[in-house]
Amino acid sequence: MTAASDRRQRGSIIGIGQTELSRDSGRSELRLAIEAIQAALADAGLSTADIDGLVRFQKDTTEEAHLVAALGLPNVRYHSQVGYGGSASCGVVGNAVAAVVSGQASTVVCYRSLNGRSGTRFGQGSHYIDTESAWSGVARSDITVGSPLTGPYGLLAPAHQFALWIRRYGHEHGFDDDELSRALGAVAVTQRRYAQTNPKAMMRDRPLTLDDYLAAPTLVDPLRLYDFCLETDGAVALVVSRADRARDQVDVPVDVLAAQQHLSPHSEPIHLYKRELASFAPPAVADALYTQAGLGPADIDVAEIYDASTVMVPLALEDFGLCPRGEAVEFLTAEEHGPTGRLPTNTNGGLLSEGYVNGLNTVTEAARQLRGTAANQVVGARHALLTAAGASSLILGAPE
Amino acid sequence: MTAASDRRQRGSIIGIGQTELSRDSGRSELRLAIEAIQAALADAGLSTADIDGLVRFQKDTTEEAHLVAALGLPNVRYHSQVGYGGSASCGVVGNAVAAVVSGQASTVVCYRSLNGRSGTRFGQGSHYIDTESAWSGVARSDITVGSPLTGPYGLLAPAHQFALWIRRYGHEHGFDDDELSRALGAVAVTQRRYAQTNPKAMMRDRPLTLDDYLAAPTLVDPLRLYDFCLETDGAVALVVSRADRARDQVDVPVDVLAAQQHLSPHSEPIHLYKRELASFAPPAVADALYTQAGLGPADIDVAEIYDASTVMVPLALEDFGLCPRGEAVEFLTAEEHGPTGRLPTNTNGGLLSEGYVNGLNTVTEAARQLRGTAANQVVGARHALLTAAGASSLILGAPE
Repeated sequence: MTAASDRRQRGSIIGIGQTELSRDSGRSELRLAIEAIQAALADAGLSTADIDGLVRFQKDTTEEAHLVAALGLPNVRYHSQVGYGGSASCGVVGNAVAAVVSGQASTVVCYRSLNGRSGTRFGQGSHYIDTESAWSGVARSDITVGSPLTGPYGLLAPAHQFALWIRRYGHEHGFDDDELSRALGAVAVTQRRYAQTNPKAMMRDRPLTLDDYLAAPTLVDPLRLYDFCLETDGAVALVVSRADRARDQVDVPVDVLAAQQHLSPHSEPIHLYKRELASFAPPAVADALYTQAGLGPADIDVAEIYDASTVMVPLALEDFGLCPRGEAVEFLTAEEHGPTGRLPTNTNGGLLSEGYVNGLNTVTEAARQLRGTAANQVVGARHALLTAAGASSLILGAPE
Repeated sequence: MTAASDRRQRGSIIGIGQTELSRDSGRSELRLAIEAIQAALADAGLSTADIDGLVRFQKDTTEEAHLVAALGLPNVRYHSQVGYGGSASCGVVGNAVAAVVSGQASTVVCYRSLNGRSGTRFGQGSHYIDTESAWSGVARSDITVGSPLTGPYGLLAPAHQFALWIRRYGHEHGFDDDELSRALGAVAVTQRRYAQTNPKAMMRDRPLTLDDYLAAPTLVDPLRLYDFCLETDGAVALVVSRADRARDQVDVPVDVLAAQQHLSPHSEPIHLYKRELASFAPPAVADALYTQAGLGPADIDVAEIYDASTVMVPLALEDFGLCPRGEAVEFLTAEEHGPTGRLPTNTNGGLLSEGYVNGLNTVTEAARQLRGTAANQVVGARHALLTAAGASSLILGAPE
């Protein structure tokens, strides 16, 4: 039983909204953001006048002031942004919780909107090695990281990095390419299966077999077409309130039991300069997350893992103790991440098969699971773990 | 007397750092940021290993990951950014407080670094009206605000906006240009006088008289050369901890008694589409700030007001009840903002005469005042009010 005083130190998700996911929305990212926010407010039984905080992905093109003007928000008194793309997907929720717990806002909207297929397409890479870009340190910077050191060797897009991670993983744990491919194929195939029963999924009605997976063209050896997430137009929004207030606002608030980001000299954006290449974050990151929630890996009923690539699933499972180090290949090949497995994972189809809203749709799916309203509901789900490559993570809980 | 439980809901500034301010630093913005942060850590008696949170101005070129790599920060678990330039100067402190109060971090560094003279110069305006820019709504946006509607009439830089505000102020309260100029001149002259005794000030040894002010060229009628802030190379950093812990960490923690941002359909970046042109924020903003601190305008001993232009001082004084509406001209002409006046204001010389670090140096100056270590110390100062045009505001307090 949680004391009322503890609830004042905690945030809850009280509303979720999501537009349709498509290859061509036909409308602006601002408009998509507005639609998702209005859906989240309706879900929470609130109106625009209730919003007093906004937290965005730094990469989003929809500015706080544009939303304030377009929605006519009268009193925004907290706003912040979280950097580094998908790393923000759990981070924005943490920022919103901090705002409501500190009393700087009462009702905070987090959002992500992108025309990721019809507009700016992510992860295309470049043949031009930009020595002045963010990846290479700032203009006139003393320090350069990233592409000037690695670009000449062909490391130009995230996909190249994913391939190196999984190769290193295979090397460390003694798996050959065939064994790795069957595990990654199981990620792609199982998530595609989840998508068949998720009305929101872009890949509904497009089932995938392991044979299909294996027959698909190699894009970055050893990774194939289906190892990569979709390109998607769409928007997602959440409403966060303080946990004690949330009980009066909605029937089923979803509590944020732990929220954490992670940046270290050996993490993004210099994933290749660290001792443990087959891991996103040191053990202290998972330890701190579980300690904050007062839970352990055995308490997690469902996982929603940021999957720009299939590769991220085994690494995250191991980093957060959801399967033992070196055993993710076996875990996935045995479909323990499937609906009847030990830990249903990416139950909406994930970024691979529902759609890619830069990861914020992993949070809405976790919220649905803990409300008991998911398309692929995990029976009795109480606790969900979410992580964007260890760079930001959450543990969410169903209300006690 | 503040209860221990209240201190757990509050943040304190426990370290401040500032590089020299100059017209040509001769080194990168990343390096300046590192120097300011190291100075702030030394001031707090901490080391880089203690930092677990970073909050930056969104506009800063020094990324969180660059600092993490360059300083070797082992465990950053919270990071956020605040948008909209100078509006972030109090906002970053609010974000840091939210992080420590919510337990997502314990020791948060806020920073701003810019080569604002030798590198990217602010506020230059443009003869090209960018219909796709942030000022005009996002690319493919449904809504446009700012320059496409106002640019054709010559409103191209912040300076143009400042001139319209003060003209409107004069119209509403019955002051002619000469009366306005003497009040604004008193801001420039008095702040320049503060700078003469501030060793850090760029304008030390360059005194200014009202005659000098009045004889200077008009840049945007009715504003003259000395109505505008400096262009500066330099960096500032702060360390924020939770108020209860701060008592064990440093002798004189400076408490954040209130922190608030403000965005509304009638505020930045569309300052011209509102009823009250001679005001930054509606009365509710000041009321909420004072309520949070449990204080009123009469309790404020020193004010540090974001002064990209002299114009911002009278408007902010009135918006926060520091002098009655319509009386700022008289207040300033009588030098009530000077060292022996009713409310010493911008006591380091401000952005006009100390230097322009996008406003974060207003926070370090307020901290020095409340520690009792300012160059132009206000005797017995207990409470400081800071505001960046009402868009972000703080009340800071000396320890009880």
